[in-house]
Amino acid sequence: MSSKEIPATHRSLIDASPIVILSTIGPTGAPQTTALWFAADDDGTIRVSLNTNRQKAKNLQANPNASLLFVDPANPYKTLEIRAIARVEPDPDYTFADVIGKKYDADLRKMDQPGESRIKVTFEPRKFLTFGS
Amino acid sequence: MSSKEIPATHRSLIDASPIVILSTIGPTGAPQTTALWFAADDDGTIRVSLNTNRQKAKNLQANPNASLLFVDPANPYKTLEIRAIARVEPDPDYTFADVIGKKYDADLRKMDQPGESRIKVTFEPRKFLTFGS
Repeated sequence: MSSKEIPATHRSLIDASPIVILSTIGPTGAPQTTALWFAADDDGTIRVSLNTNRQKAKNLQANPNASLLFVDPANPYKTLEIRAIARVEPDPDYTFADVIGKKYDADLRKMDQPGESRIKVTFEPRKFLTFGS
Repeated sequence: MSSKEIPATHRSLIDASPIVILSTIGPTGAPQTTALWFAADDDGTIRVSLNTNRQKAKNLQANPNASLLFVDPANPYKTLEIRAIARVEPDPDYTFADVIGKKYDADLRKMDQPGESRIKVTFEPRKFLTFGS
């Protein structure tokens, strides 16, 4: 099932899942996949905080095409995929990183090395695909 | 952490996980992500059975670059990514589909429509990336 708006049947997966699975396109054109902390808006817009040194940050700055997957923790056959375009903004003062830190009870400053910085990535949803019920 | 061979610390995720998360490159060059039944070899070679009508089957026939992710069901922060090249073989008599069916106690013939067929996709691992412990 595919739709332009977030399907009511699968909205709860975003709230139930501790992580989002992000796929990006790497420098050779091959996909790369990783699990991340995230924040979500009601319309299915997903945001993550990335250390600028990470490969996925470089991938999204070079190619904004992304796919996000949520798997129902109670049923691995129920999934929500969000195909999205990534918008990258600098977050040098950790304003958004602290939003994520608050959600996960963590201090993202402590995860970074001197000289590293943060970006806020907003995934603007283009299409929602659901599987399972 | 990155290695050419499957890391002993994360081998158990393959056995523990009911699904593999597969990322492929779609027709527009954007990534697509989906959760699938799978079979695994000891060396981290993953195999899936796909209906030839599915978009992911078409994606892999056009572009064999793939990323596979396993998330520890007991700890979503422990993951294993396998970057792989897909090798596609026809499976018109459901020989491999029945291997998957046996593992999952299902009949894959019943999931297909008349005129559809099956392929066996073997993901030859190129690199293993681990996160968490």
